[in-house]
Amino acid sequence: MKTFIDLTHNIVHALPVYPGDEETKLYQVKNIKEHEFNNHRLEVSMHAGTHIDGPMHLKPSKKFISQISLDTFIGNGCLLDVRGKQIIKPKEEYEERIKENSIVLLFTGWDRRFGTSEYFSHSPVVSLEFAHFLVKKNIKMLGIDTASPDKYPFEVHKLLFSNNILIIENLTNLDKLLEADNFEVIALPLKIMADSSIARVIARTCSGGCHGFTL
Amino acid sequence: MKTFIDLTHNIVHALPVYPGDEETKLYQVKNIKEHEFNNHRLEVSMHAGTHIDGPMHLKPSKKFISQISLDTFIGNGCLLDVRGKQIIKPKEEYEERIKENSIVLLFTGWDRRFGTSEYFSHSPVVSLEFAHFLVKKNIKMLGIDTASPDKYPFEVHKLLFSNNILIIENLTNLDKLLEADNFEVIALPLKIMADSSIARVIARTCSGGCHGFTL
Repeated sequence: MKTFIDLTHNIVHALPVYPGDEETKLYQVKNIKEHEFNNHRLEVSMHAGTHIDGPMHLKPSKKFISQISLDTFIGNGCLLDVRGKQIIKPKEEYEERIKENSIVLLFTGWDRRFGTSEYFSHSPVVSLEFAHFLVKKNIKMLGIDTASPDKYPFEVHKLLFSNNILIIENLTNLDKLLEADNFEVIALPLKIMADSSIARVIARTCSGGCHGFTL
Repeated sequence: MKTFIDLTHNIVHALPVYPGDEETKLYQVKNIKEHEFNNHRLEVSMHAGTHIDGPMHLKPSKKFISQISLDTFIGNGCLLDVRGKQIIKPKEEYEERIKENSIVLLFTGWDRRFGTSEYFSHSPVVSLEFAHFLVKKNIKMLGIDTASPDKYPFEVHKLLFSNNILIIENLTNLDKLLEADNFEVIALPLKIMADSSIARVIARTCSGGCHGFTL
């Protein structure tokens, strides 16, 4: 049996943004009583809410996220439970658990603080050693339920980008994957001429012997 | 072997909108030389470019597109080649071809006119009879490579919405599915508190006996 789990924060008016970024605006521009139809308009920066960082975010790249192969955004998922750790480092068991071309999701539990100032200031970070390990494993993307896997000068970001590994930030609901034996991650950015993109990120879990979505 | 095909128009500055809607703006707000990182900002109405119409677009519904089950947005695809027809009607062969819970895509070839005024004024339309047929078949979504399956007063839209069938508009690249034996449609809207949403719409084609993504 296959089930979908939504790993995306809801886009609402004033959706939290990374400190320094312009605020998110969402408003109704047409309403059915007056115009016979409803319509909404969104004004948003590409690093608000759940989004995918492309290499152009921090590298002098000319490749927009719309030009990145779709194959990057869909793959077998691997959830690592890293709750309670302030610095995320490689562990021996990861050697077997993390497969080539997978999408690795780090479950810190930090999404419960989404919308608070602490969400940005005290979040766990990924060690450069762990980032090197992910590069060696040749994964497609690293996802995390915090605003960023590292802080200024963003060496983890830059190392991953240099190796064409993209980063999914501000995930939520990763606890719902703890019991999943097997799941596929579908993380679709907009097809947009931008460095990065807000995204819809979901998991398709599988139990009871179904198979076939391995790419 | 599985391959992805992108059915989405690229989001660019001044991406065409439905006549009367506010224009699309996309601009770079941070650049790596000055700020050490790149960022882009998008101002967009939810009916610009490739998007999914939710029932709230034309019905007095309180259900935002973010509240619609993910299961609606992913399903086995069925491409109908309707090129050259100005009015799309049911055909006997559709009785067998269109399965319950599928996502039906109408290939009119009209996407070549995207960005011209003719794109809106002379596009093919779906007959109410065909819409009733789709309701009877209990499909998940109807997709089309034009701006709309019908014109004012939008009876096809309203009939489909009353039966929880959503509509994908402004698709492109449907010709690339003509040779696909079997494909899955993944059409992800933003998770947004809006009537409808811009979306990334892709197909995963399958050839050579792979299987397993049937929901």
